[in-house]
Amino acid sequence: MIDHALTAAVQRALVEDLGDTGDLTSSLTVPPGTGSARIVARTDGVLSGTAAVDAVARTVDPGLAVTWSHRDGDAFRTGEQLAELRGQSRSVLTAERTALNFLGRLSAVATATARMVRLVDGTGVRIADTRKTTPGLRALEKEAVRHGGGTNHRFGLHDAIMVKDNHIALAGGMEQIFDRLAARSGHMARVEVEVDTLDQLRHLLGLDAARMEEGHAPVVHAVLLDNMGPDLIADGVAQVRAHPAPLVVEVSGGVDADTVRGLAEAGPDIISIGALTHSAGCLDFGLDI
Amino acid sequence: MIDHALTAAVQRALVEDLGDTGDLTSSLTVPPGTGSARIVARTDGVLSGTAAVDAVARTVDPGLAVTWSHRDGDAFRTGEQLAELRGQSRSVLTAERTALNFLGRLSAVATATARMVRLVDGTGVRIADTRKTTPGLRALEKEAVRHGGGTNHRFGLHDAIMVKDNHIALAGGMEQIFDRLAARSGHMARVEVEVDTLDQLRHLLGLDAARMEEGHAPVVHAVLLDNMGPDLIADGVAQVRAHPAPLVVEVSGGVDADTVRGLAEAGPDIISIGALTHSAGCLDFGLDI
Amino acid sequence: MIDHALTAAVQRALVEDLGDTGDLTSSLTVPPGTGSARIVARTDGVLSGTAAVDAVARTVDPGLAVTWSHRDGDAFRTGEQLAELRGQSRSVLTAERTALNFLGRLSAVATATARMVRLVDGTGVRIADTRKTTPGLRALEKEAVRHGGGTNHRFGLHDAIMVKDNHIALAGGMEQIFDRLAARSGHMARVEVEVDTLDQLRHLLGLDAARMEEGHAPVVHAVLLDNMGPDLIADGVAQVRAHPAPLVVEVSGGVDADTVRGLAEAGPDIISIGALTHSAGCLDFGLDI
Amino acid sequence: MIDHALTAAVQRALVEDLGDTGDLTSSLTVPPGTGSARIVARTDGVLSGTAAVDAVARTVDPGLAVTWSHRDGDAFRTGEQLAELRGQSRSVLTAERTALNFLGRLSAVATATARMVRLVDGTGVRIADTRKTTPGLRALEKEAVRHGGGTNHRFGLHDAIMVKDNHIALAGGMEQIFDRLAARSGHMARVEVEVDTLDQLRHLLGLDAARMEEGHAPVVHAVLLDNMGPDLIADGVAQVRAHPAPLVVEVSGGVDADTVRGLAEAGPDIISIGALTHSAGCLDFGLDI
Amino acid sequence: MIDHALTAAVQRALVEDLGDTGDLTSSLTVPPGTGSARIVARTDGVLSGTAAVDAVARTVDPGLAVTWSHRDGDAFRTGEQLAELRGQSRSVLTAERTALNFLGRLSAVATATARMVRLVDGTGVRIADTRKTTPGLRALEKEAVRHGGGTNHRFGLHDAIMVKDNHIALAGGMEQIFDRLAARSGHMARVEVEVDTLDQLRHLLGLDAARMEEGHAPVVHAVLLDNMGPDLIADGVAQVRAHPAPLVVEVSGGVDADTVRGLAEAGPDIISIGALTHSAGCLDFGLDI
Amino acid sequence: MIDHALTAAVQRALVEDLGDTGDLTSSLTVPPGTGSARIVARTDGVLSGTAAVDAVARTVDPGLAVTWSHRDGDAFRTGEQLAELRGQSRSVLTAERTALNFLGRLSAVATATARMVRLVDGTGVRIADTRKTTPGLRALEKEAVRHGGGTNHRFGLHDAIMVKDNHIALAGGMEQIFDRLAARSGHMARVEVEVDTLDQLRHLLGLDAARMEEGHAPVVHAVLLDNMGPDLIADGVAQVRAHPAPLVVEVSGGVDADTVRGLAEAGPDIISIGALTHSAGCLDFGLDI
Repeated sequence: MIDHALTAAVQRALVEDLGDTGDLTSSLTVPPGTGSARIVARTDGVLSGTAAVDAVARTVDPGLAVTWSHRDGDAFRTGEQLAELRGQSRSVLTAERTALNFLGRLSAVATATARMVRLVDGTGVRIADTRKTTPGLRALEKEAVRHGGGTNHRFGLHDAIMVKDNHIALAGGMEQIFDRLAARSGHMARVEVEVDTLDQLRHLLGLDAARMEEGHAPVVHAVLLDNMGPDLIADGVAQVRAHPAPLVVEVSGGVDADTVRGLAEAGPDIISIGALTHSAGCLDFGLDI
Repeated sequence: MIDHALTAAVQRALVEDLGDTGDLTSSLTVPPGTGSARIVARTDGVLSGTAAVDAVARTVDPGLAVTWSHRDGDAFRTGEQLAELRGQSRSVLTAERTALNFLGRLSAVATATARMVRLVDGTGVRIADTRKTTPGLRALEKEAVRHGGGTNHRFGLHDAIMVKDNHIALAGGMEQIFDRLAARSGHMARVEVEVDTLDQLRHLLGLDAARMEEGHAPVVHAVLLDNMGPDLIADGVAQVRAHPAPLVVEVSGGVDADTVRGLAEAGPDIISIGALTHSAGCLDFGLDI
Repeated sequence: MIDHALTAAVQRALVEDLGDTGDLTSSLTVPPGTGSARIVARTDGVLSGTAAVDAVARTVDPGLAVTWSHRDGDAFRTGEQLAELRGQSRSVLTAERTALNFLGRLSAVATATARMVRLVDGTGVRIADTRKTTPGLRALEKEAVRHGGGTNHRFGLHDAIMVKDNHIALAGGMEQIFDRLAARSGHMARVEVEVDTLDQLRHLLGLDAARMEEGHAPVVHAVLLDNMGPDLIADGVAQVRAHPAPLVVEVSGGVDADTVRGLAEAGPDIISIGALTHSAGCLDFGLDI
Repeated sequence: MIDHALTAAVQRALVEDLGDTGDLTSSLTVPPGTGSARIVARTDGVLSGTAAVDAVARTVDPGLAVTWSHRDGDAFRTGEQLAELRGQSRSVLTAERTALNFLGRLSAVATATARMVRLVDGTGVRIADTRKTTPGLRALEKEAVRHGGGTNHRFGLHDAIMVKDNHIALAGGMEQIFDRLAARSGHMARVEVEVDTLDQLRHLLGLDAARMEEGHAPVVHAVLLDNMGPDLIADGVAQVRAHPAPLVVEVSGGVDADTVRGLAEAGPDIISIGALTHSAGCLDFGLDI
Repeated sequence: MIDHALTAAVQRALVEDLGDTGDLTSSLTVPPGTGSARIVARTDGVLSGTAAVDAVARTVDPGLAVTWSHRDGDAFRTGEQLAELRGQSRSVLTAERTALNFLGRLSAVATATARMVRLVDGTGVRIADTRKTTPGLRALEKEAVRHGGGTNHRFGLHDAIMVKDNHIALAGGMEQIFDRLAARSGHMARVEVEVDTLDQLRHLLGLDAARMEEGHAPVVHAVLLDNMGPDLIADGVAQVRAHPAPLVVEVSGGVDADTVRGLAEAGPDIISIGALTHSAGCLDFGLDI
Repeated sequence: MIDHALTAAVQRALVEDLGDTGDLTSSLTVPPGTGSARIVARTDGVLSGTAAVDAVARTVDPGLAVTWSHRDGDAFRTGEQLAELRGQSRSVLTAERTALNFLGRLSAVATATARMVRLVDGTGVRIADTRKTTPGLRALEKEAVRHGGGTNHRFGLHDAIMVKDNHIALAGGMEQIFDRLAARSGHMARVEVEVDTLDQLRHLLGLDAARMEEGHAPVVHAVLLDNMGPDLIADGVAQVRAHPAPLVVEVSGGVDADTVRGLAEAGPDIISIGALTHSAGCLDFGLDI
């Protein structure tokens, strides 16, 4: 299936590595001839990035064949073989680093996500990403989050409305924001509002309830409780559940492995974590010939 | 000055965030009007990415002006203001996340590099990057390494020759590699060979010395001692220093903050560290309006 | 503000007209020299496309200045001057046809929308577009719909979930669709389901109500009543208003100027009309020198 | 055969619809599996756009196969099946709207052209398009005009010289234009001059005849009689036929189905009609699974 | 004025030279600071390429200013200063080689053209280029031909019809070609036919004359006499001048400085010479700081 | 194997020739049907450009098959058949001129290189290219140089450091240059310095020797003796050979077939010649059907 984001990312990565000149070392030192190579895990983790590896191989040389023994979302152990590449040996070497750079980063995102998903197991809470993604790799990283068992927040500024403190300040306050959203947001646009305090939340829910009483559809579909601890979250969730329309409650802000379970038990629907994508690092894979 | 890599990365990142549709939230909620905002550090670090922030701002809105109070390579402290943005408030909000995504990642690379550089202070060893960079951001991350006081390894497969174990295996051995390099590498191409053992190193240096005795220029300009401890490195350095031509000695393989000083004191010229770029994470910056 | 869709559309249109060779006629026959020209309406209508005209002018020649006396969304009358262009006369002529091709099409969309909006005046119903847009001009046409007083449906397959008869058939039925949506749609993804009969609608609402009774958020946020007359629509609206969650009711299918008022009075929230974009034609504008 | 215009248009249209994120609905609701679908006409018409549909299918998924039972230029009736698509059901749904958007518009152009061609049947007059095409779709629309039995005017400003009233005014008059064309137009550049009055035509023909008497080749190869009725056209045709060089006579300006036959009987060679491309609307096709 | 061909060529040339990495030498060795440099001719010639030099400078650094003391089409002498560049010294050095590569090639084309134009002075014959241009530089080289006083043949396969021996063979003969052209070529498409013998010419003119006698416009507008000497050309010209429609006579095939005058005196309208663009070489310019 | 430079050059060349409109002549005059054609040499030479011809054929029509009877680097004689094309006759004609434009230029470069290589046969000197390449064709021309038996100098400003007179002047002298290089050039960056006099050379070597005596690696890896005759070169070579580190000696400046042997016998390692790429002209090939 067509995938513009993948194509763009792989093309760009190969231009970085090859320029107009190509792979000097392989063309000078490796005689023509075919062979095979294996991608092997050097750490435990959850796999993501097989489509990127396939695209790197295909772009470097349409004759390179990649056969996977694991699929995206599968867990793997140190030492396991994940894939076999067959084709011109020169092409395998040319593709190696770019392919592993994708695989290492995307599997790290999937692995970090899977860890958080496991930590909230049984609470019914879903782990989501944010827009704090690597420039140029957003669609791939968001797919890696899904491979790790997480769910995606909006993909960008273009596909959902999310009001933050700066919007509220620049609009002149919550009431102004609310009126603008009520008047102008499209019926297919999902609206989330971030609140920093429970007073703000109460204000927002009150505006929405008043409007619903006049027979209108609700304006806000989700609230983000920013940087709150479990107690405040529990209070906020209670407020939201008492609202006449069913709102999604999202929690965010400095969540880590130590705090995520406690936050989840306070009852929100979603916990979003920037570190899934901005600080997952890179898993180690090797290419053995 | 022209910078294709920067332009391509920034364009792509903005397309990810804005699609064809643009910033729904700001256009719906923020009234037209100009204002200013400040980029503030929420952690200590070394700055990198000012050109990317400038490019994001300029691409979002040519009327956005960014004024920096620090420069790339400067250290900063938590709470310090690093830059001021002035222009349409909507444009500031549209640019915010993409700008900070660049700034956070690149400053993390500069900061990680600066830390390693400090750890080898006084040894004369230089800290270098590798090709284990984020797909699409290589040129920017390599510049960040320089901002952190490091030096750059080759930029890609296209600008230097680096022979690794797989090349040697596929070529049929060190002698075959050496002969091919001697016959075919250009006079402006820098050649480095990676060795896994001191025997391999001895073999390589012997081939080169024999060729030089016949009046030829040396074929190899640098050797990489892969995954060796301080003692082996010291022995390798001694071998190289006894060679008739002056070779660069590089050390690599799982280097971290605990081991880097010991490796440096063994006497190599360069220590290269993949983690500078693949696992530096992301520094936290805020945009205050 | 950055606008990828506009830039892409204008670049492509100018490449069509100019190729690599440029404007043969103007360069051969028009002596260098500056002048002014006026864009004049040759019909009544509602204006849209000023940004496209600006972009055409700027791309042809950065020295061309366009001054508008009307704004997007303004109504105009036959014979009124809408804009003045000043700059090299050659550049004005080179830009003319491409600029008017954009202006004529986009103003036709805004005008057709405004007509429908007027026809439902007082009913509280909003007029929306569809994905039946001109290939390459979607974002511009959707903006023209807003200029005409309409609202936008989703921008593409990427920014909202809309289940149609084919999805239901391929998934194996409404229940299967519902379960998949409940399990997998993101909390920021808006979900609409199209129904062809009131039985289907009843089935869908029943599934959602049962799930809400178990304490879950609703899965569906909007329903599209496809190709129904006023009576069926009124019944459908009544069903939806009795649902515990506030759903948007959209009506679509062969709506025209004769039928739109009757449909609106049946009480839906939205009437979407493909003809706003696929059959609006082109308004006539002239460039007088 | 290579077709840059088609490729560019299809790529752009798919980016509009899919962004980086792709088809949310199909990937969430449709299980993997292959099937077939039929494109069916919901109106009578003349077919154009099969290459665009093929390109959409191929771009969305190289595994999608399209088999046509009609060819471009064929007439079809309401209810007839025109093509069958086979492949992954998800891919069929992803391609559907973009494919039909192309097919509907291009077939509308072919159908409108065929209607005009029929109306002038037997007069020997050819029906031509103009540059009033949809931005981004010119080459496709001009091919649709050929599918409808029409002929193409120039493709852009780059491939023929066409002097209009504004050029004459800016050059300082017909004589100045004529002298510039005589001195500077290439021997492979076709030259047409638009005249608004028969006096202008007489002036132009006189200049050309005088130059030919001095032994030069004619400068003008075609004249466009703009916005004239049958009587004036008949007079103009008579003037041109008396000219020593054989000139093409084109007629244009507000031509419609009511007037085209009368204009054709006045004896011109070509009648060009902007509405073929700018106001043909969109034919209705369905995709049945 | 917009110039896609120039922009594409300059962008591509700079990417070749700078890659993602940039100008290593200047950034390492030249301290920041502004200065000026002069472009000086190291040979006599006719200038072409000032727009390319301007575009290179502007793309490398918008702050680089180029001031020309000569214009395209001007003759210059060895040692003359042609332009001054002012701006960052680093930027001047970065732009130098790419700018001079354009200037040297394009001025060589203009100079070669001017030489041929001088050699046919007084005969009334025009010197034209062909499609034997440097891949990627056609529009620039065709402009250089004009700067040298020549005229342009068609710009590509897309803007004029030119029938050669292979077309005739594949169509089944001259008659078949003629009938197809008569039936299908657009009224704005210029048609030239290449003939290898005077018999072929006679055949062609006969077909056209017969058709004109039936009241049709001529089908062919120009003939190319391929690889004939002055006597054959003179006979061919006589045949053409006796034809009822005024045809352009072009001569081509292995024309050089020794033969061009004799060919011109045989009376054709145009002599086209591939060597103007494919073998003009490169004039020598220097950049003095 | 992936080849960005080739793809970009071929795409651009075909866009020049075909625009959006395509090959008017072939589509009008050549009936559908397959056939074969032969590429035949009309001169002696050394072949280069087969990959470009393949790419042109593949891009015009994936069904076109090219079978080569010679390989890049092979010598050929006038009249020899080099390749056969099979496929749609229209496609063959559409591809013809663009394919031959590449083949003629690249084979001319290979042939000019082979001639120079032969002239220095037995001296051990290698013939190298420069950056005086055709804009847009650098990678292809550098490959042609290799096909002719030459070696490549750096590919651009991005992959090696080369200090010229202007850098030295702007840096404030040789000592400043030397210090900057010592402090800042990467360990994988090859450094060459151009000298105009033997005094300059002595100064440079002295700086490097002094630094090496302090235990540092050499800073400079190659010297370019610019515009010197055999005697000066011999003196320069002697100086370099006495230097403690093995430096490459390159000679350049106005080298031609008359002077190259004498220069080679003076003992340098490399002679670089701009005329290999900037003035090789174009070999003549024909396409016979």
